[in-house]
Amino acid sequence: MRGDYIAVDWGTTNRRAYAVDDSGRVTERFADEKGLLAVPREGFAAAAEDIRERLGDRPMLLAGMVGSNRGWREAPYVPCPAGLDQLAEALLWVEPERTAIVPGVCQSGAAGADVMRGEEVQILGAHAAGLLPADILVCHPGTHAKWILLRGGRLEAFRTMMTGEMFSLLSKHSILSEQLKGEVAADAGFRDGARQGLAGADLLATLFGIRARYLLGESQGSAASFASGLLIGSDVRAGLALARGGPVALVGRPDLAALYAAALAEAGLDSIRVDGAEAFLAGIHALKELI
Amino acid sequence: MRGDYIAVDWGTTNRRAYAVDDSGRVTERFADEKGLLAVPREGFAAAAEDIRERLGDRPMLLAGMVGSNRGWREAPYVPCPAGLDQLAEALLWVEPERTAIVPGVCQSGAAGADVMRGEEVQILGAHAAGLLPADILVCHPGTHAKWILLRGGRLEAFRTMMTGEMFSLLSKHSILSEQLKGEVAADAGFRDGARQGLAGADLLATLFGIRARYLLGESQGSAASFASGLLIGSDVRAGLALARGGPVALVGRPDLAALYAAALAEAGLDSIRVDGAEAFLAGIHALKELI
Repeated sequence: MRGDYIAVDWGTTNRRAYAVDDSGRVTERFADEKGLLAVPREGFAAAAEDIRERLGDRPMLLAGMVGSNRGWREAPYVPCPAGLDQLAEALLWVEPERTAIVPGVCQSGAAGADVMRGEEVQILGAHAAGLLPADILVCHPGTHAKWILLRGGRLEAFRTMMTGEMFSLLSKHSILSEQLKGEVAADAGFRDGARQGLAGADLLATLFGIRARYLLGESQGSAASFASGLLIGSDVRAGLALARGGPVALVGRPDLAALYAAALAEAGLDSIRVDGAEAFLAGIHALKELI
Repeated sequence: MRGDYIAVDWGTTNRRAYAVDDSGRVTERFADEKGLLAVPREGFAAAAEDIRERLGDRPMLLAGMVGSNRGWREAPYVPCPAGLDQLAEALLWVEPERTAIVPGVCQSGAAGADVMRGEEVQILGAHAAGLLPADILVCHPGTHAKWILLRGGRLEAFRTMMTGEMFSLLSKHSILSEQLKGEVAADAGFRDGARQGLAGADLLATLFGIRARYLLGESQGSAASFASGLLIGSDVRAGLALARGGPVALVGRPDLAALYAAALAEAGLDSIRVDGAEAFLAGIHALKELI
């Protein structure tokens, strides 16, 4: 596809839209809270036109949860192993030659059922832009953190953990909520939690221990950091099972990537970091070049 | 202590009160929802008199969360190892010779910080009544499930897991809530989940798998049973680390005990079951005999 276009990362709670010129340079951008939850079922065409009003009347490529069964139109998943070619072939054209949704990626069978929507563009984009090698284990932290095995520049296998959601459930609704109100930082408490998670500590018991230490006056440092470290450590332990050895790439939100880097350091592993927004733009641009 | 008395198991959401004669026979009982959450801070004396109005003007022994920092008065924890003698010595007399609160039990140091309030009366009571041997691993299922090592008739060590609370968090507030609305039974899905939990499956990843299977149309059987089996299997795995081999005693609610028995069976272990209310009455009666 030639010419200027619009790229949109359209998630459940937010959307980020970019006006991009033919060479891949972003000329204008905005973000708002018109995620899926804020758009009525029949309101997506209007919500997309709203983007064009702000960024110009151009072809538009959408990725993320907008292609889910709660979004504009359901874009079927592409099975692993998946590269940019497969994504480009399976684009769902909502409006011919004008608006397309990038499909998600799925995995099934013995490797374990799993799905992603949005991360695939970032990971494959980061590789296309030379920010990631063709063979590396990638972690994409978040509400539902993904560990993704990149092999030959394609997504070969992946595993999703509800790490971020679990922390949110515990801090909003559980008996630990009072103790988890503090800030999370990669401090001594975080590293202690991460070491326990990496060592395979039982989550159900170790989490209750936060409450018990509080009642017995044995608490040290931030319980929020400890709980975050425990969950992320457990997440990293399970993620590393996809591929042991070598560095891990962290793609996504810089604040979360910093916590995962600290947990990986406790496991003796280096990490390289790629900004999620930059990776997204690289991925959409690479797709645009393929269609 | 001689004569008739009242025994109350006073928890966070409910209380169960029994009029008992000098020999231990229950002559009258009631249960209501005047748990801690329904009683104002200064309302416990009146709430206790309300029990006497219904069951007679007798000495009263209270156990459970009523002795916590959110209850009537805080009864300090007795440290492990703890037997009925230690509980009797540490009774907190709220009204001299009239109303006492049974202390909870705590563990600290290398064994891991932990606390209980209420379960100690049941476990030691079950042993005093000859329902449990002096040396056995006991599981008390619930919102916060306890695994307790009974050695020489005393509580030697224990570990609490937030198994029941975790299931509740997931079914009420998480992305899985829609799929977890079904009934939980010890069916094939439960046993599959229990086997994965017993084998040390990563909870954060395996729980997300429930969502992924649903989205990919691969769901089989009840997701609620599978999730319950997974959490209980993980709980049993951590509980058995306290003492391997030999049967496990299940003390508490019969419906939960049945699920734990099914998970223990998947681990190749027999279990014996003791009704929690019966064990509670036996424990309070044994304490009454000691004071």
